[in-house]
Amino acid sequence: MEEVDKGASERITVRRMPERARYERSGIDAILDEGLLAHVGMVTPHGPVVIPMLYARDGGVLYLHGSAASRLLREGRGVQLCVTVSIIDGLVVARSLAHHSMNYRSVVVMGEASPIEDFDEKSRALDILSEHVIPGRVEATRPHQEKEVKGTLVLSMSIDEASAKVRTGPPIDEEEDYLLDTWAGVIPLGIDVGEPIADPRLVSGTPVPEHITEWQR
Amino acid sequence: MEEVDKGASERITVRRMPERARYERSGIDAILDEGLLAHVGMVTPHGPVVIPMLYARDGGVLYLHGSAASRLLREGRGVQLCVTVSIIDGLVVARSLAHHSMNYRSVVVMGEASPIEDFDEKSRALDILSEHVIPGRVEATRPHQEKEVKGTLVLSMSIDEASAKVRTGPPIDEEEDYLLDTWAGVIPLGIDVGEPIADPRLVSGTPVPEHITEWQR
Repeated sequence: MEEVDKGASERITVRRMPERARYERSGIDAILDEGLLAHVGMVTPHGPVVIPMLYARDGGVLYLHGSAASRLLREGRGVQLCVTVSIIDGLVVARSLAHHSMNYRSVVVMGEASPIEDFDEKSRALDILSEHVIPGRVEATRPHQEKEVKGTLVLSMSIDEASAKVRTGPPIDEEEDYLLDTWAGVIPLGIDVGEPIADPRLVSGTPVPEHITEWQR
Repeated sequence: MEEVDKGASERITVRRMPERARYERSGIDAILDEGLLAHVGMVTPHGPVVIPMLYARDGGVLYLHGSAASRLLREGRGVQLCVTVSIIDGLVVARSLAHHSMNYRSVVVMGEASPIEDFDEKSRALDILSEHVIPGRVEATRPHQEKEVKGTLVLSMSIDEASAKVRTGPPIDEEEDYLLDTWAGVIPLGIDVGEPIADPRLVSGTPVPEHITEWQR
């Protein structure tokens, strides 16, 4: 447990496979910045609920887009969330089934999220959410309309309580299994980006901009 | 809400964008079978927690691999979980930021999960979990050892309460925005599979089997 930062709260401390845990903010930020989708957990009167949500990081703050949590927000109060972002880097193929695994990077952020009320702050948060998914898109589109900003719920939460978990490298097999002639290794996985498909109603002759053709993760 | 099946319980009914909801089991099963990782939510004394977990479907039952829920399991009792599986199919690029979206397929399963106690049933569930990730792997590896099965926690839960949400197709923009010469469309996303990387300790001359070279999703 020597990797555990003294600042890590008890509830965020990784208990299972603690040697895979990371608590430095730079490592946590890098994973958050690369991920596309967060899985956000909340406690409802019906039990736990996990919803995929768009998110973005702005310094030490996480923005979440989506009204899924809106029913849980009470007048002027926040809602307790657990935001998990996972990136799969590969399938770890071992000599025994028990040692199969995945190479992955994941982050868990816990805390209270509150809706952004201020118009300008919310407008800026929407831009940051957009830039997180497609950098360069804000400049390429018309400005927000007032009703668009007002009709959107953006939640904001601090990244104070966060931990990351990372697995890399080849399988770790039982020592005697290394004598077997069973293939073992890693199948690397990433994001495959296809050719952009133009909207059928695109104004004729509109070129595909570079921020679309060059999109990658 | 005409798509809502009468069998859908209140808590599993999709409220946000109900036109994207699906409740037929065949559609739900297809998404569960294609996904690689589930995000599993549970309620802990510290609030909601969401953990990425390996899962597999066996008919109307979902198996979950991982001891993350073990602390919440009480003597002979189950634990309430929300299991969410999401597949991102593309980035939906609209003419205004507000109409940007993702093409995705996601499933939410709610219910009580319990650990499998029976040795043979657990052993079989471990095989099904393995085949979900890499079909053909069970036959290619040595049999489970007793201690491996006994030392692993596998949870089982019914897929009775489940719903899917699906978005496909081009962006839906404001009618007046279709006159803009802003590029719009879809960037298709999928899983990029790299060349298998052999374990450094592989027995020399071991060929890469077809279930590894042909792996795809």
